[in-house]
Amino acid sequence: MARWEGDAAGRLREAAMELYASRGFEQTTVAEIAARAGVTARTFFRHFADKREVLFAGSETLQETMVSALAGATGGPMDAVGAALDACTPFLGRDHAYSRRRQAVISANAELRERELIKMERLSAALAEGLRQRGVPEPDASLAAQAGIGVFHIAFARWVEAETDTGLAAQMRDAFTRMRALAQP
Amino acid sequence: MARWEGDAAGRLREAAMELYASRGFEQTTVAEIAARAGVTARTFFRHFADKREVLFAGSETLQETMVSALAGATGGPMDAVGAALDACTPFLGRDHAYSRRRQAVISANAELRERELIKMERLSAALAEGLRQRGVPEPDASLAAQAGIGVFHIAFARWVEAETDTGLAAQMRDAFTRMRALAQP
Repeated sequence: MARWEGDAAGRLREAAMELYASRGFEQTTVAEIAARAGVTARTFFRHFADKREVLFAGSETLQETMVSALAGATGGPMDAVGAALDACTPFLGRDHAYSRRRQAVISANAELRERELIKMERLSAALAEGLRQRGVPEPDASLAAQAGIGVFHIAFARWVEAETDTGLAAQMRDAFTRMRALAQP
Repeated sequence: MARWEGDAAGRLREAAMELYASRGFEQTTVAEIAARAGVTARTFFRHFADKREVLFAGSETLQETMVSALAGATGGPMDAVGAALDACTPFLGRDHAYSRRRQAVISANAELRERELIKMERLSAALAEGLRQRGVPEPDASLAAQAGIGVFHIAFARWVEAETDTGLAAQMRDAFTRMRALAQP
């Protein structure tokens, strides 16, 4: 958690996570999060649109990182998707303990689980658009993107489910290789 | 629409679809749907839990059909997933015009789009469970299921997007074959 200390966004995120975990996401208010972080509600709203966004801030960075890696990759459509998956792991896999706590909060709330699925769907659409810009025709662009998001989904789930940090990069590469092997006719 | 005539569930479905399309899903009440179908609200609730379920009734049948085909298939995990995808097309692809109208209603409403994503995620979990029962270990079972649902998603979208009925079975087979080809290392 040391990485969050010293900045308001980090303190707010930490305070929110503690409250969501102890009393539940629905029962927590922005005022309570701000008070626990030692800032005003006004400061909260400078950093996050609402209490849900505390959990999903960073989605744009994640998407940009993946799309940029996809654009710069060599090889076929699935190689490019593999590069996008590899590129997100330093960012997404940097704090196993935090990711586990976040996942526990999301799993306990239907609205948050839905939000997570929508985020995945947007990511898939962004990868498909990136593939089309590489000249990959439809439906191949969307199919490769869907396969990639499937890998992302399962690799991330395995990584957060394990009590010890097995390394998101290794999980992602393993799932990607397995998916390709499984698809062999 | 002839298939729906003569039974209350079919009339209710038709009435709901007309109202959702003309005035929007949110602005339509169960009382209005029932009145238009010439039945009581009580009859509505004998067939559907709420106005959303009119659009999603049949999800269980779809899932059972796919899981059953997966269980009875020969070959590897992806062959079994392919059998599940083929099995759903006679049921899901029987009425192109109805499916297009339904999709237009869903696309126009965020809550319904979320519901559709959740349905897909449940279907993926059911296929993964079916694969585990075939002896496929994790994470392969979940990865093959995710790939299959990705194919399902794209093939269905292409089928409903086209103004003429290109045949869901053909779209599904084409997308499945393309996905396997794309995954080749």
